[in-house]
Amino acid sequence: MVELDFNKTGGLIPAIAQDHETGEVLMLAYMNEAAWNKTLESGMATYFSRSRQSLWKKGETSGHVQVVKEIRIDCDNDTVLLKVEQKGGAACHLGYKSCFFRRVVKGDDPVIMEQQIFDPKKVYK
Amino acid sequence: MVELDFNKTGGLIPAIAQDHETGEVLMLAYMNEAAWNKTLESGMATYFSRSRQSLWKKGETSGHVQVVKEIRIDCDNDTVLLKVEQKGGAACHLGYKSCFFRRVVKGDDPVIMEQQIFDPKKVYK
Repeated sequence: MVELDFNKTGGLIPAIAQDHETGEVLMLAYMNEAAWNKTLESGMATYFSRSRQSLWKKGETSGHVQVVKEIRIDCDNDTVLLKVEQKGGAACHLGYKSCFFRRVVKGDDPVIMEQQIFDPKKVYK
Repeated sequence: MVELDFNKTGGLIPAIAQDHETGEVLMLAYMNEAAWNKTLESGMATYFSRSRQSLWKKGETSGHVQVVKEIRIDCDNDTVLLKVEQKGGAACHLGYKSCFFRRVVKGDDPVIMEQQIFDPKKVYK
């Protein structure tokens, strides 16, 4: 069994979701111990919503769930990497595959680098 | 210009480093605003060390610096993704290419999935 270090950062550790086939980084969210256990047990990515202060099964509203294919932990036991199958093709609530759809170059405004997969207004009603 | 939201998490935001060629997730560290600005200006990944409470140019001890090839930010402006060229072939202080070298399966001990690239005792003297 592995003991993750939830105490270092006040009970929440970052969890990165990565497309298990392409390696694209889809999003970063946070897990408390309950979210971690739920993810292990269910095989579906489950985070802790900081805004709602509650467990958050990714995709519970949009249907865009993340099926966990592999779980990695880092050398300090305080970050999780989930390799997932992203249902619906998009992880971002703004309709992009990845939340990291904007590129930054020093001094300029961020530039959108990707195509929108869905219209958020139609998914989140 | 982009304004990252450093206040949401007490001045530090997570920064993911990803191999710019293979897509492998190498590590996660944290940035304060000074680390972010230094990374933008220098083109070398610079984080904030929580243990030392100071700016940390990745590789300043080991020589395993990260040359930043591309910077992405997430939809909430509170996470950074760096696509980097990892000098020395390994990001992890334990000598592995990625800090995420251990796989977790429910109920079992973590399993090391990768080969060590260097011997930490020889690099950190």
